[in-house]
Amino acid sequence: MSARLIDATDVAVPYRAETRAGVARLGRSLRVVGLLTQTEGPANTYAAYARRGAEDAGITMDVWEPDPAAAEAAIREANADPSVDGIFLYYPLTDPVEDRWLRELVDPRKDVEGMHSFWSRLLYENRRYVDDASSLRAILPCTPLGILKLLDEAGLGARGNPNRARLDGVVACVINRSEVVGRPLSAMLANDGATVISLDLAGAVIFEPAIGRRAHAVRDTDEDRATALRRADVVITGVPSREFPLVTAEEIKPGAICLNFSEYRNFDDSVLEVASAFVPRVGPMTVAMATRNLLRLTALRTPGVR
Amino acid sequence: MSARLIDATDVAVPYRAETRAGVARLGRSLRVVGLLTQTEGPANTYAAYARRGAEDAGITMDVWEPDPAAAEAAIREANADPSVDGIFLYYPLTDPVEDRWLRELVDPRKDVEGMHSFWSRLLYENRRYVDDASSLRAILPCTPLGILKLLDEAGLGARGNPNRARLDGVVACVINRSEVVGRPLSAMLANDGATVISLDLAGAVIFEPAIGRRAHAVRDTDEDRATALRRADVVITGVPSREFPLVTAEEIKPGAICLNFSEYRNFDDSVLEVASAFVPRVGPMTVAMATRNLLRLTALRTPGVR
Repeated sequence: MSARLIDATDVAVPYRAETRAGVARLGRSLRVVGLLTQTEGPANTYAAYARRGAEDAGITMDVWEPDPAAAEAAIREANADPSVDGIFLYYPLTDPVEDRWLRELVDPRKDVEGMHSFWSRLLYENRRYVDDASSLRAILPCTPLGILKLLDEAGLGARGNPNRARLDGVVACVINRSEVVGRPLSAMLANDGATVISLDLAGAVIFEPAIGRRAHAVRDTDEDRATALRRADVVITGVPSREFPLVTAEEIKPGAICLNFSEYRNFDDSVLEVASAFVPRVGPMTVAMATRNLLRLTALRTPGVR
Repeated sequence: MSARLIDATDVAVPYRAETRAGVARLGRSLRVVGLLTQTEGPANTYAAYARRGAEDAGITMDVWEPDPAAAEAAIREANADPSVDGIFLYYPLTDPVEDRWLRELVDPRKDVEGMHSFWSRLLYENRRYVDDASSLRAILPCTPLGILKLLDEAGLGARGNPNRARLDGVVACVINRSEVVGRPLSAMLANDGATVISLDLAGAVIFEPAIGRRAHAVRDTDEDRATALRRADVVITGVPSREFPLVTAEEIKPGAICLNFSEYRNFDDSVLEVASAFVPRVGPMTVAMATRNLLRLTALRTPGVR
């Protein structure tokens, strides 16, 4: 076994310390509200982890549990309440169509998850700051951001040259193109200079690097799993199914970095023999990035910091 | 004088009739709220035109006039009120930074102007429907959409071949890159296949056609006004200044279509001698597109039409 195992809990430690110090420096308490309509399931687990992460950073977290039909009113209440600094939505809140609208109803200045279109638009356009003076950094979605930090830790990007884009020359294969993780992650990697082959049940798409243009470009491609895995320096999986044929050592490039963000195992254990690093889960980094986002958001709501 | 003069009031007639018929078919009354904090100026003029346009289509329009400090609360109230179908914001409501956030606080399902990031993200990504089944068309911002309809009327796009993108081969020069008009317009033209040189005080940018990729791409360029105007099949200006050196006949390609959306004259009268068509203003089409958007938005809020 040769792959270095990277534990998201360990990688989160300095980020959590940094946020805790930032909260302490703020000189006022911060309060987040999580909205949960389910009584059990992954949403509840995530809410419990988020609460622990918030408390660890010195942030108060209240979990509101409205009926699904009252979720919209709860968002309005949290938006309007000046004592609420940040809002988490634990999906599903209602049904997929309605949930998509609910996400847009959160005040983007309280959107710790960075999922409002105000933020995703900046991400897809590769605009890294909120303001023209480049003083306020844009919020990025927690899970993709956590994944980028884990890949940094795994040594990705160290191979670049300071005069080139950080990930120039890197090929990534991302198996998942959800709006929540796979798609923004692919865009972020390509905005940093990587070529990303994005695979999902709907087919393959290439995110071409933002080199010589303002942002990445997206093209359809016929590239298949075998070809993509063979040339990828990084393989990232997030397939929410036990039926997914696991990625094996034979399929990947020796020395590749492998990361799984699915709740299921998407890699066969054989990859540990050929990968340079393996990241089995991301969760703790998602929470660490959310509390970090909360701290950044406070700057947007502080008078005088415009 | 050879250019055909195109009057936005005339072009708006069938769109207004179509919206009026659509409102009548709905079988219920529609109500829009306009928010205005200024006591005089262009915002007030636009509000008056919008009211006339709404009433013409059988839509009730209320203009609310909160203090600037109460604008945010007024948006929340209009969002939460189920009897409000659409919301207009008349800028400036507060200051430019705060106004940018206010725009994001409008429920996108009530955003008749198509300015919320939910809509602009779809536009910039060249996604034309809200839903995966492609049954609900996305809302586009009123003024750029009105401009596209005026260019249709001027004969743009008629030169294409049905197997190619509608504006494949067309070169456009857009002098204005505001978030409200010039930038989305350039993206829309490039998403339809045109090459767009976008000029403003911050420099020149090319919007390359969405041919062979999902959406247009944006690159920096050194192309200057003289070169861009000489090769443009369409010249669109929106410079809000009397100091702007007017575009003259000598600068443009014979037969070009010229359109001005600035409140000031940006073209010298000499262009009428060489242009094929001239559109001096857009205003009535902006209002016609806003009421058309309102009607489309009602489908998003009708239970069962998901």
